[in-house]
Amino acid sequence: MHFPEILKRCKRGPQVVLPKDIGVILAYSGVGKNSVVVDAGAGSGWLAISLANVAKKVTSYEWREEFAELAEKNAKRAGVEGTLTIKRANVLEGIEEREVDLVTLDLADSDKAVAHAHAALRAGGMVFGYLPHVEQARRFFEACEAAGFGQPQMTEAMVRDYLVRASGVRPENTGLTHTAYIVYAMKKLQTTFSAL
Amino acid sequence: MHFPEILKRCKRGPQVVLPKDIGVILAYSGVGKNSVVVDAGAGSGWLAISLANVAKKVTSYEWREEFAELAEKNAKRAGVEGTLTIKRANVLEGIEEREVDLVTLDLADSDKAVAHAHAALRAGGMVFGYLPHVEQARRFFEACEAAGFGQPQMTEAMVRDYLVRASGVRPENTGLTHTAYIVYAMKKLQTTFSAL
Amino acid sequence: MHFPEILKRCKRGPQVVLPKDIGVILAYSGVGKNSVVVDAGAGSGWLAISLANVAKKVTSYEWREEFAELAEKNAKRAGVEGTLTIKRANVLEGIEEREVDLVTLDLADSDKAVAHAHAALRAGGMVFGYLPHVEQARRFFEACEAAGFGQPQMTEAMVRDYLVRASGVRPENTGLTHTAYIVYAMKKLQTTFSAL
Amino acid sequence: MHFPEILKRCKRGPQVVLPKDIGVILAYSGVGKNSVVVDAGAGSGWLAISLANVAKKVTSYEWREEFAELAEKNAKRAGVEGTLTIKRANVLEGIEEREVDLVTLDLADSDKAVAHAHAALRAGGMVFGYLPHVEQARRFFEACEAAGFGQPQMTEAMVRDYLVRASGVRPENTGLTHTAYIVYAMKKLQTTFSAL
Repeated sequence: MHFPEILKRCKRGPQVVLPKDIGVILAYSGVGKNSVVVDAGAGSGWLAISLANVAKKVTSYEWREEFAELAEKNAKRAGVEGTLTIKRANVLEGIEEREVDLVTLDLADSDKAVAHAHAALRAGGMVFGYLPHVEQARRFFEACEAAGFGQPQMTEAMVRDYLVRASGVRPENTGLTHTAYIVYAMKKLQTTFSAL
Repeated sequence: MHFPEILKRCKRGPQVVLPKDIGVILAYSGVGKNSVVVDAGAGSGWLAISLANVAKKVTSYEWREEFAELAEKNAKRAGVEGTLTIKRANVLEGIEEREVDLVTLDLADSDKAVAHAHAALRAGGMVFGYLPHVEQARRFFEACEAAGFGQPQMTEAMVRDYLVRASGVRPENTGLTHTAYIVYAMKKLQTTFSAL
Repeated sequence: MHFPEILKRCKRGPQVVLPKDIGVILAYSGVGKNSVVVDAGAGSGWLAISLANVAKKVTSYEWREEFAELAEKNAKRAGVEGTLTIKRANVLEGIEEREVDLVTLDLADSDKAVAHAHAALRAGGMVFGYLPHVEQARRFFEACEAAGFGQPQMTEAMVRDYLVRASGVRPENTGLTHTAYIVYAMKKLQTTFSAL
Repeated sequence: MHFPEILKRCKRGPQVVLPKDIGVILAYSGVGKNSVVVDAGAGSGWLAISLANVAKKVTSYEWREEFAELAEKNAKRAGVEGTLTIKRANVLEGIEEREVDLVTLDLADSDKAVAHAHAALRAGGMVFGYLPHVEQARRFFEACEAAGFGQPQMTEAMVRDYLVRASGVRPENTGLTHTAYIVYAMKKLQTTFSAL
């Protein structure tokens, strides 16, 4: 797997969101240079930095001081410190931002932050969960339904690298076979009023 | 597969680059709000529009008037007409832009535009080819080597959607199994001079 | 996906085990011409017939008369009626056979037959479950642990067909993306006695 | 990946055909206890032994004495020495057997043995090639067409193993991503005579 320059400059903590999954979040969310994003938890900051590379403003929640510092250092290395703010707070206690375009969640219990994500998003905004286990993905999916999001979706991205040599083309024999499932949902665009 | 709002507003021509592959290009290239991009051919403009959603400036070559008009209309629908220029020219005859950060190529004979891409890119800039057949991917890979790019890479992105229901979680029974291979390479950062 | 002659002659009921999964069961179990096998439920009989094509004796449980008849007709079409017996009984109430080499289970609640499979198998014999949902696979896995099997394994087989044409080689654009997970376990080879 | 008892007893040479691919060959060919098979080259004998475990008679060509001896030893370890004959001959110089049901080819230049396979097979019999590179697969495919086989097919089997733990179910993070492509074709069932 390839890492773009912004991530090559970063230190890598115990678990980082990899480009194959960052790609799904970027492309499926449609996040762009006018977007306002909330991310949690920052961890090493790789996802937050990748989002800050394209978005107008990214706030990443991280209550563990050690990771907050790592993410801040990585943000400087990547040159996105003007766009990315690491917020020392626990996202499970609430999200202060409002009318945001995208919320990304990568926590052991991301499903518990889904209702906060719904409150923070604008209508039409999206939440994405990065969830290593099937059971976590299911809980997140059901939390999206419970919070009032439109039809959630669950997907998985797999990449396979190839060798191109004089002897011919073939996929690598071994490689990455799983990182996480991705569950995403859109905040409903309009509410139907049942009349006055 | 999910389509972001910017693409949901667009008309879909005979063949479009899908979000799973757009994601790899966005995440692996590290294209961001300061990036200058050249794309060819525009086709329906989906890839160019997705790039224009994040980049500072995108120029997309398209010599077929019919597609150039479709791409321009789609750019307006997506709201990126200020960032994306459709250039009525054949990329196989050359790329005028210089010092660009990213060149994306989706043509039947993309390998013939690789040397032009090399001339257009800044040192450290990247070229990406979207190549449905293995043989095309190989030719593109070898063209990258011949043009002096650093070690090219060939990869393939697969996504699989899941059903989450009361009866349990499982992948969809049928779905997309292939779009294209992606070959990419970076213009070397420095040239070694063999003497003065 | 390709079907061998023995299955091409068979009628296809609502859900059949497909060759990609039959292959995993054949190859991972090592079932051969000296093997004695128990299968349940027969359904259309495709898995039972494929097993009877290689094994010495196969007994397939099926309590639904409609499917029992379909499986018997298919066994004759395939020419394995001398090896395959459809047994009109509910496998959840027990397996009468003993010292069998392989038990294959494809039921909505296969996990409830795992202890019966353990009783029917010889030491070193194997049980295989064909399980469409993750939750079923997990229950089956845990039932194997509870029944005293050696370390169970969970796997998934995916096949992708390719087009080979003058224009080049590439995978089919769409196709089968999921049938079922396969969970398998071996009956322990020896019991440890805790003293005499 | 799991190995059945017959293979666990065998020594493993530099490259062996793995159970995931053996499974495709077993299930797609429909080889059974009445089948007569020709295999080449034997290599470590894993594929030949797996075929001998289910078939009536298997002849495996191997002109390299070192591998012929290894395959014979493995055949004894697996207990299939009564069914499997290692034939010290070069399959590229011809196949002596006739009216066989299945020919399996795993050579650097398997395509050069395809016409011999056609001569050896009964009508309705099948040839399978195990081909690590795309270019080999294509040459084999085209050799099948040239030799008069019915429509060849090219496929690829992928397996993914899962972890089932208290924390949840998820695929292994890394694993096998490629062994070989499999190309197969059937000898036409009848010849059309153009009249007398």
